[in-house]
Amino acid sequence: MEATGIVVEYNPLHNGHVYHAQQAKKATGAQLVVAVMSGNFLQRGEPAFVDKWARTKMALAAGIDIVFELPYSFATGHAPVFAEGAIRLLEAAGCSTYCFGSEDGDLNMFKQSLELIDHSKDTYEHEVKLAVQDGLSYPMALNKAYMTLNETGNGAADLSKPNNILGFHYMQAAKFIGSTMKPVTIQRLGADYHKETLELGEIASATGIRNSYFSSSSLDQTNDFVPTMTRELLVKWQQDGLRFGQWEVFYPYLRLIILRDGPEHLTHIADITEGIENLIYRAAKKHSTFQPFMQAVKSKRYTWTRIQRMLTHILTGFTYNKRSMMQTPSYLRLLGMTVNGRAYLNEKKKSLRLPLVSKAASLLDPALAMDIHASDIYALGTGLPTSQDYSLAPIIENHFSSNSFK
Amino acid sequence: MEATGIVVEYNPLHNGHVYHAQQAKKATGAQLVVAVMSGNFLQRGEPAFVDKWARTKMALAAGIDIVFELPYSFATGHAPVFAEGAIRLLEAAGCSTYCFGSEDGDLNMFKQSLELIDHSKDTYEHEVKLAVQDGLSYPMALNKAYMTLNETGNGAADLSKPNNILGFHYMQAAKFIGSTMKPVTIQRLGADYHKETLELGEIASATGIRNSYFSSSSLDQTNDFVPTMTRELLVKWQQDGLRFGQWEVFYPYLRLIILRDGPEHLTHIADITEGIENLIYRAAKKHSTFQPFMQAVKSKRYTWTRIQRMLTHILTGFTYNKRSMMQTPSYLRLLGMTVNGRAYLNEKKKSLRLPLVSKAASLLDPALAMDIHASDIYALGTGLPTSQDYSLAPIIENHFSSNSFK
Repeated sequence: MEATGIVVEYNPLHNGHVYHAQQAKKATGAQLVVAVMSGNFLQRGEPAFVDKWARTKMALAAGIDIVFELPYSFATGHAPVFAEGAIRLLEAAGCSTYCFGSEDGDLNMFKQSLELIDHSKDTYEHEVKLAVQDGLSYPMALNKAYMTLNETGNGAADLSKPNNILGFHYMQAAKFIGSTMKPVTIQRLGADYHKETLELGEIASATGIRNSYFSSSSLDQTNDFVPTMTRELLVKWQQDGLRFGQWEVFYPYLRLIILRDGPEHLTHIADITEGIENLIYRAAKKHSTFQPFMQAVKSKRYTWTRIQRMLTHILTGFTYNKRSMMQTPSYLRLLGMTVNGRAYLNEKKKSLRLPLVSKAASLLDPALAMDIHASDIYALGTGLPTSQDYSLAPIIENHFSSNSFK
Repeated sequence: MEATGIVVEYNPLHNGHVYHAQQAKKATGAQLVVAVMSGNFLQRGEPAFVDKWARTKMALAAGIDIVFELPYSFATGHAPVFAEGAIRLLEAAGCSTYCFGSEDGDLNMFKQSLELIDHSKDTYEHEVKLAVQDGLSYPMALNKAYMTLNETGNGAADLSKPNNILGFHYMQAAKFIGSTMKPVTIQRLGADYHKETLELGEIASATGIRNSYFSSSSLDQTNDFVPTMTRELLVKWQQDGLRFGQWEVFYPYLRLIILRDGPEHLTHIADITEGIENLIYRAAKKHSTFQPFMQAVKSKRYTWTRIQRMLTHILTGFTYNKRSMMQTPSYLRLLGMTVNGRAYLNEKKKSLRLPLVSKAASLLDPALAMDIHASDIYALGTGLPTSQDYSLAPIIENHFSSNSFK
């Protein structure tokens, strides 16, 4: 059996994601889709809209055969770290290909970009350094340096687009680890990644779906954009009296931690650098709600996302020291599978390159302990029970990759 | 001008407290009453019902002339520490007497108790040790040892009563520091210290008043038991949309801190001993509300109050290390005064034995920093603005010790 790997967050899963999963199979000719999915905290440094178990159910109903959790350390890392963690897991899971969405669906453009940077490594790194010294944020600096190399416009990818950036880093990581997986890219469909509103048509962005809920406290507007399973699980979340994850919900806790621990303690937290702990402390002292707090912390030097990642680490107590204990993925944490997925894992179990973890209690590992810990912190904000990593088994979906749109 | 000192919490101030203040003046012949009052966290290890500023206003309206804040480290300490901190402040403030309520209003009984323990120090300490080894809580062990010495019943004080315990420790502390203040005791009036319900008559316990509010979410039942100023300030607190302080309000924050920091970090927190950090961690993981959490932590060995003090220190991040920096009071923090009180301070200002602090920003001191810090933590739970220690000046009450009951 051949599997293709994809990297997802499903925050929440919508029709565009279903399309992507279908296309991944079609474009690669694989029998299965294996997804590496962020847990309860995401790459933009945010708590997930709903937890990883609900999002796993959505994924299985949408045609994904196996869902592995991307450990906290990578799920909340910046693009290169996120990409490398995900690619290492897909490689360990024995995927023959990995498939990502891009603006143009043209793999050659990414190959060009990689070559371009590879051939002018020194110039590139020098330009990045200059731009950072100039006060640009790291992603902006990368893009500026890249633009300098790419001034001829010779058909390389546009790395100012979020999907392209991730795609580029997947390919860079695959090359770096000597992956045997073949890359495949498919053209994105529908709304922009960060599109903040919902518009007519059946493809929306996850951001748009979340914003629609948060601005109206109702899921009614989102119905047309998500599969039945997503709709049902979101309604159930609401009926169970749970809070949908967003910073506004977690900010009172974050604020208390910041004020309690004080700026000196914050310097031990991963990603906190250059005295930003003082700015964070003063802003938390002053502002009782999240948006004004962020406005007070934000600057040209720090992207919104980078600050949110710091805040996530403050909330979960993720220190530089902890991060140093989990530099590379050390297990494949199974969140769910279809019967197809189970057959695949049975076939591959001897050749998987990392231990397969179905029960959280079965492995003592600092990164797994961190995933469990992060889920408990997430549970306190949303109202979920704690210790679900121990009490819940992987979800088994009893269908053969049915993937109808609704 | 002669002042008498009293030690108070006013949580909240009720008619019994007004009576006590009047009697203190009468019994001592003093022109003024100086109160040392706990800040926003109290001796039983609880957040105050309303903040120290509101409680200072209540005190001034009820006939107290000067209110000093008992620093956090002493306010949340067990009886001997609480008493010593308070007595040292009253001594530093130049009071000629200090006055406390007791069951019988008979000072000789306390003198007997002190002598009894003094003369049989070794036996007493041996008995305390045995009782603790036997599994008794510390206050229970003290009382048992004392009962052994006092088996003849020779007219010493009954140290199983909360007011008597504190009185005993005031006198012990005064002796220990070589205080020149004369002790005076007056008989308590009205409801038991811990009486949990309100009954007819105009003297209730502060506990009864708080419980009446918490069980009905209404202040109506409490009107007959408190002076006008208390009533008005409690109503204002409610109208301002603030939450009345109690553990139930702070528990979600406490729980997040416990889960985030984990048992190892908790061992640095003041008063955490003998592995109770594991019990606290497990209980927090399991219980989403305060009472079941406490039931899970409580044992014969640990009194409810002792556990609550640990929790207060966890909430505020008060470590053994911090406590070691504030072993003895180092300033007189003025929260409020009447014009009478101001005249007294003007008269005494050269002879005060500790620096008088009217503005928090005027003194860099770890204990003062802790008071300010604790107030910020308190503010987050109740909904108050942060940094009020800097923004508010001492309250000045423009009357001459009017102390009418209503």
